[in-house]
Amino acid sequence: MIDAYEIIGLVAAVLTTTAFVPQVVKAWKSKNTESLSLPMFIIFFVGIILWLLYGIHLNSFAMILANTITAFLALILIILKLKYK
Amino acid sequence: MIDAYEIIGLVAAVLTTTAFVPQVVKAWKSKNTESLSLPMFIIFFVGIILWLLYGIHLNSFAMILANTITAFLALILIILKLKYK
Repeated sequence: MIDAYEIIGLVAAVLTTTAFVPQVVKAWKSKNTESLSLPMFIIFFVGIILWLLYGIHLNSFAMILANTITAFLALILIILKLKYK
Repeated sequence: MIDAYEIIGLVAAVLTTTAFVPQVVKAWKSKNTESLSLPMFIIFFVGIILWLLYGIHLNSFAMILANTITAFLALILIILKLKYK
């Protein structure tokens, strides 16, 4: 049985992952990425990859799930920022 | 002794936390938050609070450190977005 803390972890995973969707949609539709910070998303992307490794070490499904999807979405934002700079 | 994975977790903590600093500085200086997504940062903030609880459960110093600081920085971005919308 999944304990309460694993559910908190999974909800956290869904929220921090979902948070990137409106930003990706906004950047994609508006083609405006002027106030997005490129250094932020590059540093963030590398950090997320390390969180993924750490999550694998902790054997945390929530962390592995969240960081895999977030890394992918952050990469899309980096590509959009470079495309529409 | 700290093992290699705890160091990966701490580096991840520093990177994903640091990633928010250029975004905060950029929003603060430019007073332009037009292409920042408010829903993103609100959902993200709530998610980070849940990651903090999950990190406390896992007894992970890296997760507690990162999510405390990131929650604070995300809150600043939400305030700037509301101020300069």
